[in-house]
Amino acid sequence: MIYLDNSATTEPDSSVMKSFQQVSEKFFANASSIHQLGGESEKLLNEARNQVAQLLQVKQEEIVFTSGGTEGNNMAIKGIALEHQGRGKHIITTSIEHPSVFETCKSLEKLGFEITYLPVDKYGVLSVEELERSIRPDTILISVMHVNNELGSIQPIKEIAQIAEQHPKLFFHVDDVQGLGKLPLPLSALSIDLCTFSGHKIHGIKGTGILYVKDSTTIYPLFHGGNQEGSFRSGTENIAGAVAIAKALRFIKTREKEEYAHLQHIHNFLRTNLAQMAGVVINTPEVSAPHIMNVSVPGLRPEVIIHTLAEKDIYISTKSACSSKERDESRILAACGFKRERSTSALRISMTYDNTMDEMKVFLRELEEAIKQLTKVMR
Amino acid sequence: MIYLDNSATTEPDSSVMKSFQQVSEKFFANASSIHQLGGESEKLLNEARNQVAQLLQVKQEEIVFTSGGTEGNNMAIKGIALEHQGRGKHIITTSIEHPSVFETCKSLEKLGFEITYLPVDKYGVLSVEELERSIRPDTILISVMHVNNELGSIQPIKEIAQIAEQHPKLFFHVDDVQGLGKLPLPLSALSIDLCTFSGHKIHGIKGTGILYVKDSTTIYPLFHGGNQEGSFRSGTENIAGAVAIAKALRFIKTREKEEYAHLQHIHNFLRTNLAQMAGVVINTPEVSAPHIMNVSVPGLRPEVIIHTLAEKDIYISTKSACSSKERDESRILAACGFKRERSTSALRISMTYDNTMDEMKVFLRELEEAIKQLTKVMR
Repeated sequence: MIYLDNSATTEPDSSVMKSFQQVSEKFFANASSIHQLGGESEKLLNEARNQVAQLLQVKQEEIVFTSGGTEGNNMAIKGIALEHQGRGKHIITTSIEHPSVFETCKSLEKLGFEITYLPVDKYGVLSVEELERSIRPDTILISVMHVNNELGSIQPIKEIAQIAEQHPKLFFHVDDVQGLGKLPLPLSALSIDLCTFSGHKIHGIKGTGILYVKDSTTIYPLFHGGNQEGSFRSGTENIAGAVAIAKALRFIKTREKEEYAHLQHIHNFLRTNLAQMAGVVINTPEVSAPHIMNVSVPGLRPEVIIHTLAEKDIYISTKSACSSKERDESRILAACGFKRERSTSALRISMTYDNTMDEMKVFLRELEEAIKQLTKVMR
Repeated sequence: MIYLDNSATTEPDSSVMKSFQQVSEKFFANASSIHQLGGESEKLLNEARNQVAQLLQVKQEEIVFTSGGTEGNNMAIKGIALEHQGRGKHIITTSIEHPSVFETCKSLEKLGFEITYLPVDKYGVLSVEELERSIRPDTILISVMHVNNELGSIQPIKEIAQIAEQHPKLFFHVDDVQGLGKLPLPLSALSIDLCTFSGHKIHGIKGTGILYVKDSTTIYPLFHGGNQEGSFRSGTENIAGAVAIAKALRFIKTREKEEYAHLQHIHNFLRTNLAQMAGVVINTPEVSAPHIMNVSVPGLRPEVIIHTLAEKDIYISTKSACSSKERDESRILAACGFKRERSTSALRISMTYDNTMDEMKVFLRELEEAIKQLTKVMR
């Protein structure tokens, strides 16, 4: 199997799975129970939190364990919106956010919020000047993703953070689900207020995530109840999940340092070869995250290519999994100004550190063959 | 180990754990990915949903997989409140709900909602007449738990459902986290609109839950995004979690039928013996769920008894785990009208089908001994 849909989800690391299982079985007691078993569970949870905080170079109390990226994004955006609506009801985001940000903003419009969806250029990048101009006295939140999940384009988070800092009354949220473990993001140094991470995108398990909440930040929680997770996220703690994501984070942070060059290498190899392939147009800009390569094959339906490759045990995707069943056109590629022919025929190849050059060669050969065959059939 | 804190959380069933692990490893693809691997994941998810629907005797599309009981309760209550606030902003609940209902209602007060917290009698049961009288034209939701998590008292869900049915404009939500697998609750027959379940209370794994949402019911989702789970709960599906909770539900439903008498038997045995134990007052009413026995030992601090028993490898709790660290007094026992001496000295013994008569005998002996010793020290 050549699995190249790692931006949808990754294969869980076997030792992460093992930790999850062991903790689930041995430390099953409720961390909020006051007896000794509960205390042991709580200790383990604190250790996981401490480990995550160290890896992200933030404070322990700024780490909130969640059920995943969608929860994190909703918690951050709705949390700020509902908590700080008295100060203003204007939010700034971009037109290329993940559905868990985009649809959350859309839903807030129904609750009386006004959202500015910033456009992006053909490289999938927003204009910092335009962002600055769109800030109003009633702006309470800027939410911008680090790495785009379809294109791999990188937003100028540092520059946005500098602008946000000049407006101390607004909060800055970053969706770093796709950037984590690929491109470092110094949370504290950049004065980011909220940042979303997901476990299953970094070889962790599904149903786990982290929301970073800077210690001066207050939000209206999505989950009220027993005041777990510093009252930000009530509910019986999923300690095994916390330990699992801490471990996955430790592994991916090591690989980010040691194997970035490998990922960049196969990315460049893909780019060079895809640029020469008949019928293929590259959508991912030159400056991009190393693990995503988006191309279009105008005239061919992407799902047909995907199924043809799947017969060869090669798995890629079209658009993001979270919008793959929705409609034909990629909202992201359309926002980049690409014409319909291109925005409806996109393929996303998304890699992880485990992928090899040999896999890339097989993939390129099979893709070329698939395009040739399908083009013949179409004519 | 004699574990009697099963209402806080249960030990996960080893075959449920195994299923979780196998599905995580073999079916890791994103169920929303359109390639074949995604299709296989989706198929498995549908099978889990189908199994749950059959076990609960409802429709497949009425099953929403969540991260747990707290999410389910928040999703139901905030979901109805935010979606239907145009029709009215009045909610009826009780004064003995779990914090994930109680605090959620409190938080809605800040958003302009008005909440009626119905009192309960000394048996921890609300008055159906009083509930009916409290319904107003602007009432949009009644939220009442099935089995109380501290006391084990049972609310008259059938009678409440009949009243709710006469007011077709309001929704009826039941928190059945403690009742599931102990006392059947026919969701469809009773016209319940929303019902919350948790995985880790029925020997499933933490981070899993189910919200039943009757097919005509619309809610404002807590998680917006890729429109998974019938658009009620966006986010990459935790398929292994869904399979695990389906399996745990299947097991507990079988045990509910076949081993209820056993649980009732050890409950009665506990009651008889605790009633005769010096210094002990029974709080759990005669009519109650079979797995919870709440007693007070006035004059002794419950945490001291708990720690003394823990030294003998016996684990019980005081109040619910979700409020165990909060304050001295049990809000539930106070609502029943018990004096402070009793409401601050409560112990909760919560059983599961695995507990044996032999364990009960050891527990009773050690509890009696602990009370004797501690009383001596206090004098």
